[in-house]
Amino acid sequence: MRFEPFTRKVFYYETDKMGIVHHSNYIRWFEEARVYALDMAGLPFENVEAMGVLSPVLSAECVYKLPFRFNERFFIKALIDEFGGARFSVTYNVFGEDGVTRVTGKTSHCFVDENMRPLRIKKTHPNIYSVYEELFKTGEDLYG
Amino acid sequence: MRFEPFTRKVFYYETDKMGIVHHSNYIRWFEEARVYALDMAGLPFENVEAMGVLSPVLSAECVYKLPFRFNERFFIKALIDEFGGARFSVTYNVFGEDGVTRVTGKTSHCFVDENMRPLRIKKTHPNIYSVYEELFKTGEDLYG
Amino acid sequence: MRFEPFTRKVFYYETDKMGIVHHSNYIRWFEEARVYALDMAGLPFENVEAMGVLSPVLSAECVYKLPFRFNERFFIKALIDEFGGARFSVTYNVFGEDGVTRVTGKTSHCFVDENMRPLRIKKTHPNIYSVYEELFKTGEDLYG
Amino acid sequence: MRFEPFTRKVFYYETDKMGIVHHSNYIRWFEEARVYALDMAGLPFENVEAMGVLSPVLSAECVYKLPFRFNERFFIKALIDEFGGARFSVTYNVFGEDGVTRVTGKTSHCFVDENMRPLRIKKTHPNIYSVYEELFKTGEDLYG
Repeated sequence: MRFEPFTRKVFYYETDKMGIVHHSNYIRWFEEARVYALDMAGLPFENVEAMGVLSPVLSAECVYKLPFRFNERFFIKALIDEFGGARFSVTYNVFGEDGVTRVTGKTSHCFVDENMRPLRIKKTHPNIYSVYEELFKTGEDLYG
Repeated sequence: MRFEPFTRKVFYYETDKMGIVHHSNYIRWFEEARVYALDMAGLPFENVEAMGVLSPVLSAECVYKLPFRFNERFFIKALIDEFGGARFSVTYNVFGEDGVTRVTGKTSHCFVDENMRPLRIKKTHPNIYSVYEELFKTGEDLYG
Repeated sequence: MRFEPFTRKVFYYETDKMGIVHHSNYIRWFEEARVYALDMAGLPFENVEAMGVLSPVLSAECVYKLPFRFNERFFIKALIDEFGGARFSVTYNVFGEDGVTRVTGKTSHCFVDENMRPLRIKKTHPNIYSVYEELFKTGEDLYG
Repeated sequence: MRFEPFTRKVFYYETDKMGIVHHSNYIRWFEEARVYALDMAGLPFENVEAMGVLSPVLSAECVYKLPFRFNERFFIKALIDEFGGARFSVTYNVFGEDGVTRVTGKTSHCFVDENMRPLRIKKTHPNIYSVYEELFKTGEDLYG
């Protein structure tokens, strides 16, 4: 597997009266990058959910170093940095055209079924397990 | 029934780089006012949905006369201005502390079941029908 | 000029508890498509605003025919369908991979300066005027 | 000073296809509660910004224990838990009608002027300084 960072431009409605991207949107960008990474891994998130595997967010954190402005292009590298079968966490590095990191973050997740009961996907959904495991093992090399 | 207009203050994250509320948020405010009106009518929207009656939006329109700014208090009167059993429409009047209308709008809706099939609620859910009918008939007098 | 429709996939956070894209988001998508069209026309919106020309939304309308779901790809053709120097309006056609229109809409705008005073851009910013005029005249042929 | 927790109901557009509040919204709720606390302290945030004092977010974190659903009432206690003149941090406790904590969080901020240069508000804006200091010193007793 060889991934490209997720990229798009900043939308107007993502800015606030300070003239910069509102800080809440980075949590949403993290999700966009997470979904994109699964698309690239051949395991679209909507398929995962259709198989009855949800991965709600247990915690999220974000560090804001430099702001983004309207219509700037941004890039996000998402990496699975912890994976244990029942839980995983993802780190995010958000940078601009110049490659300089402006925002970093991390989200942690668990696997549950549609009734929010914990799932040991290694047993119940080994194909999903193996994709997450490979992403975890490959680490930063994903983005070559 | 005697209704109060829906009211709250403008949130910071609702502003954009022009320093005013982003125009997309008024469509959301309309929904807030619509839900509030049903709460006041004793028919909370979550109960309606729990009974298997969804009311998706068929169309929405919004006219922006004057902007709102961060932390300003706004008020919305929502009125059912068309009701036919299968469809209904709601008009919205958004005003500030001074009572001057700044934004108006309208949404139209239909009743469907959870599979998005049309529902004739007069037959299937007469209790819901009668609340909508009363709101429709009372009209502006709701807000005394 | 030859334009491509604006395209991206539906984000998870754009869905609501009905399992489809929340209707308010289409107003935001319209803005994304509008900004993208100006990028393609060589007149990025941030440059327009940096020249002191704002184009607030006077009205917006949206007709919802069919829903979009999470991670579906959508496309938008934005066209200037009215242009008079002081005001303009844009229509939007939102369709999926199958080319079938699911949502249509229209926004109308005026040109104002940073103090929200009307601008006759034909005089004050003829370069901006000519881009809008060309987009207006070319019409649907833009997407050839 | 004696504060009430910030409270409102969950909006429909805040839910996602999982049927619960999308996790990104809690970062926005934190901001709502922060602004409300300043209103209660007699120092509305729009006045602070009008005095040229911005307080951008340096970092944010959120722990999700239990979800909120559409139209549920929620409450937030916001407390300044660190204050040093140049920086401050705020903690958030989000709970429902039953008083049980469902989400907690923390944001850290600095004071800057409109050009994003650090401000020592003790010197430049002693009135703002003293309000923050009092909030910090009073701590949990604010909510009696």
